[in-house]
Order: sequence, then C-alpha cells, then structure tokens
Amino acid sequence: MWFDLSPEKLRDYRPDREEPGDFDRFWLDTLAEARTHELAATFLPFDSLLATVDVFDVTFAGYAGDPVRGWFIVPRGLPDEPLPCVVSYIGYGGGRGKPHEHLFWSAAGYANFVMDTRGQGGRGYGGGGATGDPDPVGASANDGYMTRGIESPDTYYYRRVFTDAARAIEAARSHPRVDASRIVLAGGSQGGGITLAAAGLVPDVAAALPDVPFLCHFRRATTLVDQEPYNQIGNFLRSRRDLVETAYETLSYFDGMNFAARATAPALFSTALCDQICPPSTVFAAYNHYAGPKDIKVWHFNGHEGGGPYQAEAQLEFLAKSGLR
Amino acid sequence: MWFDLSPEKLRDYRPDREEPGDFDRFWLDTLAEARTHELAATFLPFDSLLATVDVFDVTFAGYAGDPVRGWFIVPRGLPDEPLPCVVSYIGYGGGRGKPHEHLFWSAAGYANFVMDTRGQGGRGYGGGGATGDPDPVGASANDGYMTRGIESPDTYYYRRVFTDAARAIEAARSHPRVDASRIVLAGGSQGGGITLAAAGLVPDVAAALPDVPFLCHFRRATTLVDQEPYNQIGNFLRSRRDLVETAYETLSYFDGMNFAARATAPALFSTALCDQICPPSTVFAAYNHYAGPKDIKVWHFNGHEGGGPYQAEAQLEFLAKSGLR
Amino acid sequence: MWFDLSPEKLRDYRPDREEPGDFDRFWLDTLAEARTHELAATFLPFDSLLATVDVFDVTFAGYAGDPVRGWFIVPRGLPDEPLPCVVSYIGYGGGRGKPHEHLFWSAAGYANFVMDTRGQGGRGYGGGGATGDPDPVGASANDGYMTRGIESPDTYYYRRVFTDAARAIEAARSHPRVDASRIVLAGGSQGGGITLAAAGLVPDVAAALPDVPFLCHFRRATTLVDQEPYNQIGNFLRSRRDLVETAYETLSYFDGMNFAARATAPALFSTALCDQICPPSTVFAAYNHYAGPKDIKVWHFNGHEGGGPYQAEAQLEFLAKSGLR
Amino acid sequence: MWFDLSPEKLRDYRPDREEPGDFDRFWLDTLAEARTHELAATFLPFDSLLATVDVFDVTFAGYAGDPVRGWFIVPRGLPDEPLPCVVSYIGYGGGRGKPHEHLFWSAAGYANFVMDTRGQGGRGYGGGGATGDPDPVGASANDGYMTRGIESPDTYYYRRVFTDAARAIEAARSHPRVDASRIVLAGGSQGGGITLAAAGLVPDVAAALPDVPFLCHFRRATTLVDQEPYNQIGNFLRSRRDLVETAYETLSYFDGMNFAARATAPALFSTALCDQICPPSTVFAAYNHYAGPKDIKVWHFNGHEGGGPYQAEAQLEFLAKSGLR
Amino acid sequence: MWFDLSPEKLRDYRPDREEPGDFDRFWLDTLAEARTHELAATFLPFDSLLATVDVFDVTFAGYAGDPVRGWFIVPRGLPDEPLPCVVSYIGYGGGRGKPHEHLFWSAAGYANFVMDTRGQGGRGYGGGGATGDPDPVGASANDGYMTRGIESPDTYYYRRVFTDAARAIEAARSHPRVDASRIVLAGGSQGGGITLAAAGLVPDVAAALPDVPFLCHFRRATTLVDQEPYNQIGNFLRSRRDLVETAYETLSYFDGMNFAARATAPALFSTALCDQICPPSTVFAAYNHYAGPKDIKVWHFNGHEGGGPYQAEAQLEFLAKSGLR
Amino acid sequence: MWFDLSPEKLRDYRPDREEPGDFDRFWLDTLAEARTHELAATFLPFDSLLATVDVFDVTFAGYAGDPVRGWFIVPRGLPDEPLPCVVSYIGYGGGRGKPHEHLFWSAAGYANFVMDTRGQGGRGYGGGGATGDPDPVGASANDGYMTRGIESPDTYYYRRVFTDAARAIEAARSHPRVDASRIVLAGGSQGGGITLAAAGLVPDVAAALPDVPFLCHFRRATTLVDQEPYNQIGNFLRSRRDLVETAYETLSYFDGMNFAARATAPALFSTALCDQICPPSTVFAAYNHYAGPKDIKVWHFNGHEGGGPYQAEAQLEFLAKSGLR
Repeated sequence: MWFDLSPEKLRDYRPDREEPGDFDRFWLDTLAEARTHELAATFLPFDSLLATVDVFDVTFAGYAGDPVRGWFIVPRGLPDEPLPCVVSYIGYGGGRGKPHEHLFWSAAGYANFVMDTRGQGGRGYGGGGATGDPDPVGASANDGYMTRGIESPDTYYYRRVFTDAARAIEAARSHPRVDASRIVLAGGSQGGGITLAAAGLVPDVAAALPDVPFLCHFRRATTLVDQEPYNQIGNFLRSRRDLVETAYETLSYFDGMNFAARATAPALFSTALCDQICPPSTVFAAYNHYAGPKDIKVWHFNGHEGGGPYQAEAQLEFLAKSGLR
Repeated sequence: MWFDLSPEKLRDYRPDREEPGDFDRFWLDTLAEARTHELAATFLPFDSLLATVDVFDVTFAGYAGDPVRGWFIVPRGLPDEPLPCVVSYIGYGGGRGKPHEHLFWSAAGYANFVMDTRGQGGRGYGGGGATGDPDPVGASANDGYMTRGIESPDTYYYRRVFTDAARAIEAARSHPRVDASRIVLAGGSQGGGITLAAAGLVPDVAAALPDVPFLCHFRRATTLVDQEPYNQIGNFLRSRRDLVETAYETLSYFDGMNFAARATAPALFSTALCDQICPPSTVFAAYNHYAGPKDIKVWHFNGHEGGGPYQAEAQLEFLAKSGLR
Repeated sequence: MWFDLSPEKLRDYRPDREEPGDFDRFWLDTLAEARTHELAATFLPFDSLLATVDVFDVTFAGYAGDPVRGWFIVPRGLPDEPLPCVVSYIGYGGGRGKPHEHLFWSAAGYANFVMDTRGQGGRGYGGGGATGDPDPVGASANDGYMTRGIESPDTYYYRRVFTDAARAIEAARSHPRVDASRIVLAGGSQGGGITLAAAGLVPDVAAALPDVPFLCHFRRATTLVDQEPYNQIGNFLRSRRDLVETAYETLSYFDGMNFAARATAPALFSTALCDQICPPSTVFAAYNHYAGPKDIKVWHFNGHEGGGPYQAEAQLEFLAKSGLR
Repeated sequence: MWFDLSPEKLRDYRPDREEPGDFDRFWLDTLAEARTHELAATFLPFDSLLATVDVFDVTFAGYAGDPVRGWFIVPRGLPDEPLPCVVSYIGYGGGRGKPHEHLFWSAAGYANFVMDTRGQGGRGYGGGGATGDPDPVGASANDGYMTRGIESPDTYYYRRVFTDAARAIEAARSHPRVDASRIVLAGGSQGGGITLAAAGLVPDVAAALPDVPFLCHFRRATTLVDQEPYNQIGNFLRSRRDLVETAYETLSYFDGMNFAARATAPALFSTALCDQICPPSTVFAAYNHYAGPKDIKVWHFNGHEGGGPYQAEAQLEFLAKSGLR
Repeated sequence: MWFDLSPEKLRDYRPDREEPGDFDRFWLDTLAEARTHELAATFLPFDSLLATVDVFDVTFAGYAGDPVRGWFIVPRGLPDEPLPCVVSYIGYGGGRGKPHEHLFWSAAGYANFVMDTRGQGGRGYGGGGATGDPDPVGASANDGYMTRGIESPDTYYYRRVFTDAARAIEAARSHPRVDASRIVLAGGSQGGGITLAAAGLVPDVAAALPDVPFLCHFRRATTLVDQEPYNQIGNFLRSRRDLVETAYETLSYFDGMNFAARATAPALFSTALCDQICPPSTVFAAYNHYAGPKDIKVWHFNGHEGGGPYQAEAQLEFLAKSGLR
Repeated sequence: MWFDLSPEKLRDYRPDREEPGDFDRFWLDTLAEARTHELAATFLPFDSLLATVDVFDVTFAGYAGDPVRGWFIVPRGLPDEPLPCVVSYIGYGGGRGKPHEHLFWSAAGYANFVMDTRGQGGRGYGGGGATGDPDPVGASANDGYMTRGIESPDTYYYRRVFTDAARAIEAARSHPRVDASRIVLAGGSQGGGITLAAAGLVPDVAAALPDVPFLCHFRRATTLVDQEPYNQIGNFLRSRRDLVETAYETLSYFDGMNFAARATAPALFSTALCDQICPPSTVFAAYNHYAGPKDIKVWHFNGHEGGGPYQAEAQLEFLAKSGLR
C-alpha cells in the first residue's frame, strides 16, 4: 500500500531545509572536542570459528573519549595489500552482535569495519550491543534514544553517535589492511542516517550507501507516520507540549537533509514506497539535496526491508562501477 | 477476562523469595553513600493559579547527590499545625507534571509530597518530567528504563530510583508543615512498587498504600505477561540470551517481595483480576510476604486502572481508621 | 501522526452549515416543554471524606421532568460570597462518579456543578453514572447512545441531553453560593459538545470552554474517522442503508456548528492534530462559526487527550483574563 | 486454537447452577403479566418479490404489550394443511431485516416465524431491526443491551426479550397454517440463548435447536472471555465495582443453565471448540443440565460460526428423525 | 470511514485502460482451446433435504477439459417451462458448499447455476469446494491464488477460472429447464469480477450483476489497499522485485476494466464507500468503462458487505424491470 | 511470555506417536518412485559478484522428476579436498533467493547446498523462489501450502517436498568437492522440519541441526496456536468440517515425531519458550522421540527467531565437537 507522495512527485520532492546558522560551527567544534581524546583504536584478534575471514574485536575513543566497540572483518585468501573498507552502521536498536551477523562485505572482498551504536543493542533482534552511552545529564525523555537530551543540540543523543561515526572512519583508516582512500560508508535505516551524517562530516570518503535512511526531514517524518522510532519524538512532545519548537530546533542540527547538502562522495540511496518507518518522501528529501553524484533505487512493494538482497546486489555493482573493487 | 490464578489460589499464593545474601548490606551501603551528600531540600513557592492549596517547587539530593524534583502541596484553610503527609510516587513513564495533576491528597487534608521519577516523564501522558538520570555507564539496553544497567545491581536504574524514594521521605520530613511521625507512602503501578521499596527501606513510616504495584516477583511477571513495561526485560534478553540469569540476579535486589518482607507499616494493597500489566499473582506474591498489618482490595473486572476512585475512597477510610487524620 | 487537514488549512476551514429552517423553533419548543416541569433542584450534603470542599448530591428535573443527578462542589475557606460557578459536562460513557474525581475547579476557587449524563456512566472508566434515560420509544439502534432515536429530532437522544444541560445551568444558578452572572460552561469531548450546545441555547453565560469537542460537523466526522463513538452512526447505517439522509437531517438539529453560530460568550476551544476521535477539522468547523469572542489552543502531537494539564492551565488563565475570578 | 477445557472435560462439565429460589415464580408472574395484554397478532401480506414463498409482516404484543415485529414465511406449492413451524430468534445486534435473509426453513418445508429482537438490529450486519424497546427506567449502562437494567431482574433487558419469545410462540400458533403441536425453536448465538429460555418457559414445544447458544453460565463466560457481547457485563462492572454480586444475582434469573434444567423437548445443540464468543464450556454447562432428550454437535476448528451449513443439514436430519416433517 | 476518492470524483473516475494489443486474440484462442474439449455437462439429482427446490450436482469440462463442479437449483411448483437462469460465481476463497447456501435465486423464481471456483473453497467460510485446479507449472507464488502463474498470461490462474466461467454459461444453457436467452450473470467480490469477465467474453447474456467486484484496475488496487486478496500481489512482488512490470502486464489480460469495455448486457453494479477490499474507485473504473446499459448502487457506510439484502432486493427489481422475469 | 508447558514439563514431554502401519512402506515406495527418474544434478557456475566463494546454480530431479533448483556455495582458499557439506532447507514461504543470502556455512568452511522449496518463495521475504510445484490434482485448499492435497498422503504437498529433500542429499553428494560421509542437514522452522524428515529418510548423514522445527506433532500444534502456517490446517477444516480425521491421518505420514524416531545422526535441536509459531512442546515432542545422540538449546525469551546468532555459534561448536570440521 502506498501512503506517501506518488512516485512522480517523490522524484521532485525537495523541501526547504531548516538549517541553523551555526550548523557547521557546531559540528566543527564537536569533532574538534572529540579529537582532543586520543583515538586509541585497538584491534584484538577474535576467535569467531569462521574459516574465510579474520575477525578483530575493536575499541576506539568516540564522543568524549568514550570507548566504542566494533568488529573488523577481513577476508582471507586475497592478495596481501590494502583493501577497500566498508564502514558499516547499524539499524536502530541493534548492536554489533556476533561477527557472523556481518558476512556480506567481506565475502564481497571488502574489509568491513562494523561500528556498534552506543547504548543500543538490546531491542531483541540480533546478538546485542557492547557499547555504553554515558550521559551526564540523563534528561527526562521518552523510552528509547530519539529524545535523549533533545532540549539542546549539545546534549542530544545523536551528537554523540554521529561523532562516534566520524571517529570510526578514522579508526578504520588506522588499520594497515585498509586503503584509506577507498572508504565506503554503508548502513540501512538508522545506519543509513548515520551514513549520511558521516558522509557530510567526513569529506574524503569514496562512496556512501544510505539504504532506506532514517533521521531525515524530521518535521515531515514526525507528522506523517506513527511508527517506531520516529514516533518517540511525537510521544515525548505529547507530554512536553511546550517543547515542540525546541525539539525541532535541536533536530535541525541532525537532519540528514543538511548533511546530504554537504556530502560529495558518490552515493547510492534506496527507498521503498510502502515504507512507513522511513517514508519515501523523507528519503527523497535527503536525496534531492545530496550534493554528490547519486542514484536511488525505488522499491515498489517493499516496506522498511527495502530492496534486501536486490539492493545488496545493486550496491556491489555500484561500487564496482565506481572502481572501488 | 481473567488470565492469572483463580481468586481462591491468589489468596494463598506465596512463592519462595529469591533473595541475595547481601540484600540488606547492599541497601545499607547504598543509602549510606547517598547520605554522604547533603539533602539540600529546597521548597520554592510556585504560582499554580490554585486557590485552596499552597504549592512549592521542590528539589533535593537523591542518589549520588543528583538533584531530584517534586511538588509539595499543602491545603490552605486548615489549622496551622503539622499535617500528616503523603509522599507519592509516580507510575512508569509519568513525570511530576503540573501541580493541578495532584489534587487528591491535599483535598483530603494531607500535605502531599510528589516525587518526580528520574529520567522519566516523557511517555506522553501527564505534563512531563523535570528530573534527569545521570548515568556514567549507559550500558546497552532495551528502550525504556527497565533494563538500564541490569548487568549488575550496582548499575541498575532502580537502585537510583529507590534511593531517591528514601531520600524523598527525608525531604518531606524536613518541612515544618509535615508531622514526621505521620508519613504515608502512596502510588500506583511503578509508584506502588516504589512505595513497597521505600516501606522496606525506611522503617518508621506510618502507612503504605501500594496500588496495583509493579516491580514484584520479576521471574513470574516476565514470563506471564507480554506488556509494557515488564516486557522490556524479556525483549532485552531476546538479544542478550547470555544474560538471563544475570538479569534475574540483579532484579532480586529490587523485587517488591523482598522489600515487603521487611516492611512493618500498616498497608492497604490493591490488585485487579484483569490486570495484565501488573498481574494479580505478582501483587499477591508481595502481599503475602508483607510483614506488617495489611489488607488488600481485589477488583474483579478491572485492568491496570484497578479500583480507581473506589480505591481512593478506600484509602481515605483506611488512613482514617489508622488514626492518621 | 497527522491525518486531517494541514494546520494552515484548518485555520480557515469553515464549511457551510446544514441548518434546518426550524432549528430555533425546535429548541425553543423543546426547552419550553421542559420548563413546564418544575426544576426542583435539591442539594443534599454529601460526606465525601474531603477536607477542603463541601460536596452536595444534586438532583434536578431535566428533559420531560426526568430526574438528573450531579455533584455540587464548593471550596471551603473562601470569603462567604457568591462564587463564579463552572457547570461541567462529562465525556462520552462517563458518569458523575465520585466527588473526588472532580477536584480541579474547586481547587481553583470556583464552585463546580457537575452534571451526570443520562443513561451513560457504565463504560468502564471513572466511578459510574447515576441517572437514567427513560425512553418511551426505544427504537432499534446501534449499541451505544449515538443512534438512539435518530430517526427523528424529536426522539433523538441528545435532545434529552442538551435539554438537561440547559436546565443544569438553571439548577446551578438556583444555589445561593453561585453568582448567576458568572457561569462558565466546561467539558471535554462529549462534554465539549454539550458545552457548545448549552452556550448556544443559554445566551447569558459568562464563558465557554469546549475542550476537544465532540458532536460537531457530523457529515465530515462520520466519513473521516472510524472510531468510537462517531462510528456508531456509520455502523447503524451499515444496516439501515435507507436512513442515511434521515439520520443527517436529525443530526443537523444537534450539530455543534449550529450552536456555535448562536453562542456569544467568550470561548476558549482546544483541538489536537492527532485526535482521531474528534478530528481537528470538525472542531475548527465549529470554532470558525463561533459567534462570540474566541481563541483556540492547537496541540501538535496530542490525540484525544488534547492539552491535558496544559489546557487546564490555559483555561485558568483565560478565565482570569476574562475577569471571572 | 483451543482455549477452553479439553474436549474430554467438556463432555462432563456440569457446574452447579446458581438458581434463585423464586426463579419459577418470577417467570410465572412475568408471563402472567404479559398475558394481561391481548396478543393481537397480525399477519399482513408482504410483497417480497419472491416466487416460492408467501411472506407476512407480523406484529404481536410482547412484554408490557409492546408491539413486536417479525416475519412469517410459508413455502408455496405444498399441500394445503398445517405445517410444522420453526420459530426462530436472531443473533445479538441483528434485526429481522428483509424476508429473503430467512429462506432456509421455508425451503426445507417448514413455516417460519422470525421474531425481531426489541431495540436491536442496528449493529451493521443484515438489514436492520423494526422493533423498539421502550424502557421507562433507562438506567446507567454500558453501551449495548447486556447491562440495561441489570441492577434488578425486574428491569433487566432480557426479561422483556424472553417474554417476547414466549409470546412469539403463541403468535405463531395463532396462524391457521401452523400445526401448533409441531413448533420448533431455533436460533444461533443470542438466538440460541433465547431458544433455551423459550424451551424452558414454554413446555409443549416439539423441538429446540440451540446453536452455539449465548446467555449461558454467565459467571464463567464473563471471566473466561473478553469479547462482545459478554464483555459488556465486565466493562460495566469496571465502572460500577460495587455491583458485581448484584449483577450476577440478576443474571441468575436469565441463565440458560436454569432454563435448560426445565426444558423437556428434544434438543440438538451445537458448540465449537474455537468459539471465544460463546465458549464451549458455557454451552456444555447448559447442555449437561438440559432435561430433555438431547444431542450436541461439536465442531473442532470453528469459531462462533459453528457448523454453519453442516449444522443446518444436521438440524434437518434431526427434525426428520424426530418425525417433525 | 471513507478512504478513497470522494463520491463526486468517483462518478467521473475513468482512468485509461492498460490493454495489451492481443487481448482479444488471447481470449479467442483460450476459449477455442477449451472448446476442443467436450463440454460433457452432467446434472446428477442430489438429495438436499429441501422441499421447494430440485437440486442437481453438476460437472462440466472447464479449462483444459478439467472437471468443474457446481450446483443447479430449480424452484419447484412453477409452470413447467424454461426459466431464466442466474449463473452465479463465488467470492474469493469460497466453494460451492452445500446447496442450501444458495437459496436466494431459486426462491425468486430463477433457475440457479452455481459454479465452483477451481482450487478454492478451503478458506474457512461456507461449506468448502469440490473442484481441483490442476497446474502443470506450479510456479513459485505467494500463498493464495492471486499470483499463481503470474509470470505469463498463459499460466495465470484466472485464465483458467475465466475460461471455466464462460464454459459454465454453456453448461447452464445445455439444461432443458433453462431459457438460453435469459442468462443472468451474478456474483459478489471475486464473483463480481468473474461476472465482468464472463460478460465481456460471452456476448449474448441478458444481464450482469457485478456486486462489489474484485479484479478491476489492478494497478490502483494493489497500491491503494493492503488487504486480502489484492495484497497477495504486492506481497509476492516484495520478494520478486524484478517482476513488477511483468506482473502488471499479465494482469492487463485479466482486468475487469478491459472486459467491461467489451460487455453489452444491461448491468447493475454496486460499490461501497468504506470497502477497503475492493475500493470504490476500482469499481467505478470498471463501471465507467462498461459498454452496456448500466446502473450502480453506492452504499455510503458499508464495507465489503456492500448492500447485502438491500442490493439483493435491488437486483430483483432490476431484473424485473429488464423483463427477465 | 510463556504460553506452553513449563520448562520442567517440556523436558519430559513425550506424547504417543500417531504412526500409520505402512509409514515405512509409504516412504520406501515414494523414494523408489522418485529414483526411477535420473537425478540429473547440474551445477552451473554463477557470477555472484562475491570474492570468497564459488557459486553454482543447481538443478536436480526431485519428486516425479520435477526440476528442483538450489545453490551450491564453496569457500575459496581452502585446501583442494572434499569438504563437509551442509545441505540446508528453507523456512516456510522463502525461496533460494540470491546466493549472498546464504553466506554463513561457507564462511565457516563448509560447502553449502541450498535447496529451494517447490512452489514457495513468494511470501515477501528474501529474494524469491525458482522452483515450481507441478500438481496434477490441485485440490480445493486453503491459501498456502499446508493443505494442498491433504485428503490423502499420496497427494499431500510435503510428500513432494520431503522427496526433494532426500534427493538433494544425493545431488550434493554427487559433487566432487563434497565429502559424502560428512553431510550435515540444517534448517530453521520449515527447514528444521524438512531436516528431521530427511534425517529419518536418509540414514547415513553425519549430523542434523533442526532449528525451531516446524511440522511436528500436528495434532497439538493445530489446536494450541493460531498462527501461520500451522493455522492453515485449522482454517481449511473450518470449511471442510468433514475432513478433520482424514487430515490428521494424512499428516501422520509427515509428522516430525515419526521421522525423529527413525533418525540416528547426532542432532542439535533448538526451541524457544515464547515461540507461538512452532511451540516448544511440539519441538520437544520430536526431540524426545529422536533416536540418535542429541542435544537441545532452549531459548528463554525468544519467539520463532530462536537463538539466532547464538544458535549459529552453538551449531559450529557442535559440529566441531562432532569432528565434522
């Protein structure tokens, strides 16, 4: 069932961006602060029982120097030279889980750096998370992560996550098997939203693959659909009726549209016309503002699962065509 | 619809308690640590637009000295002498909201000290919360508060909340209009669970009114029902399959049954036979372990709303009969 | 989730009214007939266990002289002079319940006259009703009250209720503690719809506070949403396919838009953009036809709970600004 | 899905009956009072556009002499002599609708007298009702008919309906094409409950066909399932917590178990193991108390639709075997 | 609740048809192939226990000569001459069941030929089916019949069903009690869709009664609603993302709009404004392309049940007015 | 939420098997018939864009010689000698999809032979199916595959599937990179049920890994839960009330309990206590009858997802311990 704009209107849907005047300054300062902490990326060999990959248990310093976990997975049997590396981000509520939950990119011949999402990983799918989200404020919030600290961009949860995401790229690049000039950012849903943010914050990545991305065009998303996790914002504002505009102001620092307008790497997006979790108009809003070379796959009868294995195939082709493998 | 034990079996339902050997030590240490911070209870007059009560905006030092907010509401027009005071705790997800959300106890002639629940208050009902839950660990968790820090009793969320609850009684007693010998603890659902905890931790309160209490007999509750918020625990353990027993061990430090077995104040419980949020068997499990004089109202066709205005009436009668007003 | 007109379009949404030519005559005759019965308002002191209010159990003669029940609640401790009085009407399915379910207005310094809704009060929330709805016809109807007697305005259920509502104002004014020139009408949902009707039928009230009002713009409401209780009308017409226009003709005598066009008291409305029970366009339809001074609060992320404690606060400020206290 | 007792236990399920001491007196007086009104059965020829039946629009005096409507349908082309007649009662919320909704019994060679259910017929299925339920009390009730007047057997809705049902038999017998010694009572769900009541109240009927009967063993039904319409009772008692035992006392005058224990006509019951509307244990409770010759069809995978066309076939065979055609 | 175009826009809704160039050729060839098999219609007398009709168990050769079952029901007691005959088709998932499930048309004086739908009849309503759907390909499909063989018009399930439907008319006409010049096609939902197809394929039928017809304007239906059975198509295409256009191409050979444009018999359609199974715009799409004399009943508050007994009455009047009885 | 037997009772739950006397004969004959068709296994190299595996598009002759599709995936970079091979079967409604949906076993160092399930693969998850299910009978059935041909074991759908499964093992063994003595059978849900069947039919496999297996203890499963796909059986029998025992008789030839009693390979089962799709008691019924060495993982808070990545890890350990790698 289609519920959003028609496919024709989606193609041209390019709403005005709400962008605070100090957007760039905010992020420059935020990343600069994070970089005052040493990156301290460690890669501990991990016995995953797998035969075709080498797995490393990763820790690096993210926002505020907090330890962020991940996996680094390298295919065996390829020539011993630096590989293109996919830095992948995880969907809302998921955690890094077990290494064998992440076999696609290494099977395709890429090194794969999987970043855990702080605090998340306990939502009941996958193997769980391993990274804490220390929060010195802990403001009154809706259940879930979407409204943590939403009263100010300084305290908002995704400030920490997006900073981790930028630092994860630095951590990936620090490994000798990674070719720093061939970093690909990838992720679905929240992972797609983080991909956009990282592509906007880190200028020199080689490609971005935001798949059914979340965290785009909040003002429309929060009034168009009533599904987890966008609905956490509206649910919070059902109590805190006084904070509606404050919340949107905070969110304008984190909107995928604003990051898209700064990104320059070639990108392959996807969206699905029945996706009520990350509605297609919010994806096209980011897509149509995206400043780099771009393409988008539109799946006609899919919900939030999007193109699934078809999108994966398209991604391999896109990267091959882009000369990344 | 009844879904739990029959009314006859509920009366006798008194399961074994899982109680860690160092339960008392854990809580003694916890409260002692909290008391190293000055209570610093402040009562700022607040213009509530109301005519029959005086309202104060309260702050006091809770767990780790964190500032905890609340309301203090005193009926006008009564003789100028210390009043019995109801310290009331709030249901899951609610916040202290506006003073006029709390008019019952003052209308009945009691001073009323309403404690905000840290971090909560953004769930979409009521007027919202005002208290943060600083958390230096921020471990991977399910959405919601039930699994925050569940890997250890030291880091578990309710360690902080129950400590706040005990400190709230001290704050209430510090006000000159309160008769410290006539403290009544009250609350429904999570507020009922906190009431039990505080009644177990603070020996000299005058009465306890746990209404459809939450946070009792976790092992049964988590496998009997699949509703918010008990289900957050199971949902977390769906990812973290390795933590099932660890979680129950942590929860044994926070189970209402164990606090009930230590409480001595006269208590009026309630439970409802159709309550799938806080099932009647989990309430009777606590009730049948309660060590003080006690009574319980059983509502035959109610869900989690319980006795509602009928229970309120019964509470007034119970307190009157107990000589508290 | 928003599902109705955009906020911008709502502001200007003023559909044509369907108004029968004998609308005024119908209501003049109806009220005249009711007034052939003596009002016979009695106020029996009631022991509510409360300390800051005096409570009276009220009975007066409503439609056809039928006895209608209510509560009259007066704050203690105020100067002994006539008070402004809020006549309040109840949401669909609720009953007058217990006096302590109605503490807000007296706490704010108003006398409060609570009218029970005939036949209702058994829907499972609150403390229940106490007033019968004698019906000499008892026509075939859908479950619920919305289609009782809908085949003619003469037999329609709300003819009886709105008549009761007008008589309730007379009953309130008959009490010596009430200042008859300062009558405020208030209610949420069905109570808001009755408020509009009473404000249209009783010209000299001092203010009206229709909160998320029901019973407005039936033709749109019944085709726009499928929720209780508006959906009772469509469900009835699913059987009685022959009565569609007959039903709308009956409803045109009871539509809040038509009462609004006759009301002159200053009014504070509210509506909520996610309210699928009383959709915002049906509220604005009445608001934009309202003939007196008016304002409206629009709650962006609320459903039928509307502004809740925020709206209550706004109402106190509105009445204060209007010089009513 | 099975949710009730196992098939083996159902066979023997014969709970104690709650029967008031004046049960027989209550009904004798009730029927005697009804018979003080002339039956006044009229049969107006009705143009149904049908070719194989004659249809009559029926009115007769039911409870309190209120006019009750129905259809009388006689197959054409059979020998011109009195026919066995099926008096049929309608499921909850349905009305007599159009004659062509009732073609089964006449096609099978029976005269068919269809009784409308007072007040009902507006629930959205079928063609609607035509009979009012005048109610001089109109007590506060839940939406729907199950709790109307439930505070006393004298005012309870089904007192009026069951009286109508007994009078309907008299009306059927008054028609010259009906063989008064071959009256068959039939109906599904509420129609089955009325069948049981009429079979208990009218001693000399020739057969009874209670199909998935409603209105049996209220105490179990109201606590075992949460579906319309049994749940109306619990929903009412959720507000009126004080009336639980009063309601059951009233219902004991209307329980199918008590009528079953008085019935003597040969009966074919049915029940379905997945029926959550009229659970199988409540049907077997009546069946096992039924005092006449009896059989029951148990449908293993059906819900409230029961045996449908298979049950209809079984009924024809049962009546043929009983020598009724 | 209305969810589709407004009633005004529906009246004029006449979208372009997607019609393959070889549509007529495809069907000519298909029917020609079927007619290479002998029709072999047999009518075995069947003991239905009914008194006013004669029932025959029918078999005839459908698509590929496969045996297709049905009932032939003739009213008794009418003059012994050929009757007008209603050939009726069944809703999705139903089967021919028992003869007494089909009493309307014979009661109205028509012979009635009921065609079983191959493969269907096991969906849990009615008495079940009796006809197999031999399928030598058995391609990967969604559960249900809507996507069987959808990769090509040659293998698509409804090619077989529509061919059966045309052959059923021939079988009906082969019976001596049938007046071949007075064939009426009728059916609701899928039966309505088959009615349209047969009316387009068989030029000389006397009337068509497509009631809330299914299988019209697939492209809109599959993106407008998400209900069974239209949603089977989208669900299949959620996996087979590569087949979206292939599927629509296949469906263009089976779209009710294209058959409507070829039909010439007088037709009475129906649609219901709340019907989310066969949305009104898809019905009007076919209606507005219908090439014969036509009328349509629009039911304002009904869902897929449509006009029910009111539509049946309208159908009798329509046929009488058309001189068919 | 737990809904089935307690964990303690599950351990001992070993219900009697319903086993037809000619069970072994039926399957011997069935497999013998299939083997009259040449296996004709072909392995076409397939360009999957993957770097660490070789992929082959497989076809072999299954039941009745029908072509069955699959993937054969071999890890690159391992010593060039025969590998242990996991033959894996797919969950209900899924298809073989794309090769990169099957990366786990090859990453762990096994050859992996993935068998497509005939007719399935269009349920909307994964990449779709590629194998037809030719069916010369096509009997009336419920939507879905569970009731196809259920009137006889000869025509039942799973006769064809289980035969395919046995032939798939032969096809796998025919490839030179496979060590025929180290065949492991694996699959979840329906794949687990097929695993059990194949383990019972093919005596010399080296291990079996039935994960949350479906198709076990039909009599309990069909009455205990009401979820897809077990509920298709009850839904069919809701129409075909006459076929209840016939269906169970057919199913007794396909029950995992009966295959388990014949299997001898070491097996690692899994079940989840909240799994309402394949309830734990039905899994333990098979487990406790399993005739080979065995172990079972019980997941306390999982539904049908079972142990997910934890189970995968346990499977690797189990196989390693069994000396298979």
